[in-house]
Amino acid sequence: MAVTYELIKTCKQTGARRGRLHTPHGTIETPIFMPVGTLATVKAMSPEELKEMDAQIILSNTYHLFLRPGHDIVKKAGGLHQFMNWDRPILTDSGGFQVFSLSKLRQIEEEGVHFRSHLSGAKLFLSPERATEIQNDLGADIIMAFDECAPYPAEHDYVKRSLERTTRWLERCIAAHDRSEDQALFGIVQGGMYRDLREQSAKEITSFDLPGYAIGGLSVGEPKSIMDEVLDYTVPLLPAGKPRYLMGVGSPDALIDASIRGIDMFDCVLPTRIARNGTCMTSEGRLVIRNAKFKEDFTPLDPQCDCYTCRNYTKAYIRHLFHADEILGLRLTSYHNLHFLIRLMENVRDAIMNDCLLDFRNEFFEQYGLSEERSF
Amino acid sequence: MAVTYELIKTCKQTGARRGRLHTPHGTIETPIFMPVGTLATVKAMSPEELKEMDAQIILSNTYHLFLRPGHDIVKKAGGLHQFMNWDRPILTDSGGFQVFSLSKLRQIEEEGVHFRSHLSGAKLFLSPERATEIQNDLGADIIMAFDECAPYPAEHDYVKRSLERTTRWLERCIAAHDRSEDQALFGIVQGGMYRDLREQSAKEITSFDLPGYAIGGLSVGEPKSIMDEVLDYTVPLLPAGKPRYLMGVGSPDALIDASIRGIDMFDCVLPTRIARNGTCMTSEGRLVIRNAKFKEDFTPLDPQCDCYTCRNYTKAYIRHLFHADEILGLRLTSYHNLHFLIRLMENVRDAIMNDCLLDFRNEFFEQYGLSEERSF
Repeated sequence: MAVTYELIKTCKQTGARRGRLHTPHGTIETPIFMPVGTLATVKAMSPEELKEMDAQIILSNTYHLFLRPGHDIVKKAGGLHQFMNWDRPILTDSGGFQVFSLSKLRQIEEEGVHFRSHLSGAKLFLSPERATEIQNDLGADIIMAFDECAPYPAEHDYVKRSLERTTRWLERCIAAHDRSEDQALFGIVQGGMYRDLREQSAKEITSFDLPGYAIGGLSVGEPKSIMDEVLDYTVPLLPAGKPRYLMGVGSPDALIDASIRGIDMFDCVLPTRIARNGTCMTSEGRLVIRNAKFKEDFTPLDPQCDCYTCRNYTKAYIRHLFHADEILGLRLTSYHNLHFLIRLMENVRDAIMNDCLLDFRNEFFEQYGLSEERSF
Repeated sequence: MAVTYELIKTCKQTGARRGRLHTPHGTIETPIFMPVGTLATVKAMSPEELKEMDAQIILSNTYHLFLRPGHDIVKKAGGLHQFMNWDRPILTDSGGFQVFSLSKLRQIEEEGVHFRSHLSGAKLFLSPERATEIQNDLGADIIMAFDECAPYPAEHDYVKRSLERTTRWLERCIAAHDRSEDQALFGIVQGGMYRDLREQSAKEITSFDLPGYAIGGLSVGEPKSIMDEVLDYTVPLLPAGKPRYLMGVGSPDALIDASIRGIDMFDCVLPTRIARNGTCMTSEGRLVIRNAKFKEDFTPLDPQCDCYTCRNYTKAYIRHLFHADEILGLRLTSYHNLHFLIRLMENVRDAIMNDCLLDFRNEFFEQYGLSEERSF
């Protein structure tokens, strides 16, 4: 099996797990946040910078790479690792989520999804077989099943039909998967915000013996309390011996609260997207660097942070870079935010080992100025 | 004196000089190319990257920093070095060139220049005293006299009146200069494309005992042959014991041909500007990375280059980054082009030491596919 999970310890205060994921490109300490490199680059960052901040695995997008530059070119380059100069683990999603969130005029059939490129308008088609074949060409360590991520809100009937199709599609992904010796295929549990449907999906998806399982269809606009509730009843249905990946989640509070519920892996564009907008995650909460009050603030973004940005630059300088549209500004805030989440998960892992994750949570939420609603 | 020049050797094949410039922030080997950090950042680059490629000194712009963030803020930050996290030498220009090339509705008087900000339209004023005071606040190792850079073409009469005012302004800059103990003020020889006026200006400007002299008003649209001619008769009028700085020149051929004529220092936005456009300088000439022919080219930008970009990335990947509007693309080409010019000047210095600069020139021009017209 390309990827194996080693459970090291379960927190005594919560359901959180400290584990290790062994992959062909190295071992990942979990729970982990995975920076997103949509188009074979984590926006504004170099691979060396990602390593310097201890990024252990990054995520890339099948849909986007299928459109540009095309998986055939990535394959000819020797695969995604070589193409983008990244020798640590990579996870690719299946393109399912993007087909449903980005593309236009999509038409879902049992066979697959017809859609138009959000760039050129060209007619395209993705199916379980096609998405798996593309991911085989890209060559990531972990690949994802082609699924439908139902919108929120959605009717019970629709979500039920959708999750059942996702199960049938998983079977076809497994059959199409050509590189199980060096690529681990994860299944995705859907079911929207309905308990009976999450239970049905979890039962169906885990009936396939896979190296890992993901929870999809959360962080799609629902209140934070619903996400917590869905995790509360869904995570226990997943096998303890396999990694659990919560897709598309990246706000600091959600990372902590989902770790508490036993999630091992996260990804989200949030830290880099808000960074390019000048919003920074700090130990004291959100900071908008363009703000006039930072004009003469010669202190770092976060006094508690020891990242490259905070060791070398002041708020006044970074504010100036943003007002002057300078690329270095985007680099510095992107670096800081990714470092913030990576360090946060390091602290979560330490807290699990020390059986104090709940205490860590309460302290963090207080310092971060968090109410019960999500922070970003 | 804040800056002293040490002449090491004169090339036996040409008039080129190998020298050293000692400044408060370190020693610079000349002839040298200085990357431009217009707004207190060399676009897309980090200070560490500039050091890695052996950038020995960078240039920054008084006009731009006066507008954003304001020299008062840079001063409060502890000066430009501290503000931008750069501990090697810095040169600031006086803002003269930008006032004449960028701003609108300018009105030149003996006292100084009234103009409108090219950003906000606000009414502003720069004079020899003001430009010097601002540069004192910025704190660069080398600062430039406030001059008028006459346009090309311009009438003999206009250029004569302009250069004479530039001389009077230099006298006022010297009087206003408050930090001669740690900042070296360079004078600027003007005179357009007229031999008698260059001679007049050189005589007037060098009558002031300054730590260095610049040649302004070239690379303003004139043919390359005229630039060579102006240098041929102007450089010999400058004292051999002081550094000679040719302002705003950065095409590979011009760097070589002006070094041959005895120039020691160069600056230009060209390498970074064309890099952001996807144009790369290589040992085989200009390369436009967006070109379809590089779609499946898995070789580096320049087979003879050992820079970070060329050691780690292929043309196919960089082309993909440009087509996907990814910031890493701009970073990689900017790095490569700056490295190219810095390495070129290293080779020029070696050729001077080995008395073979003319041979080096001919070989380079042949390999680069250069005609007598300028390369970029």
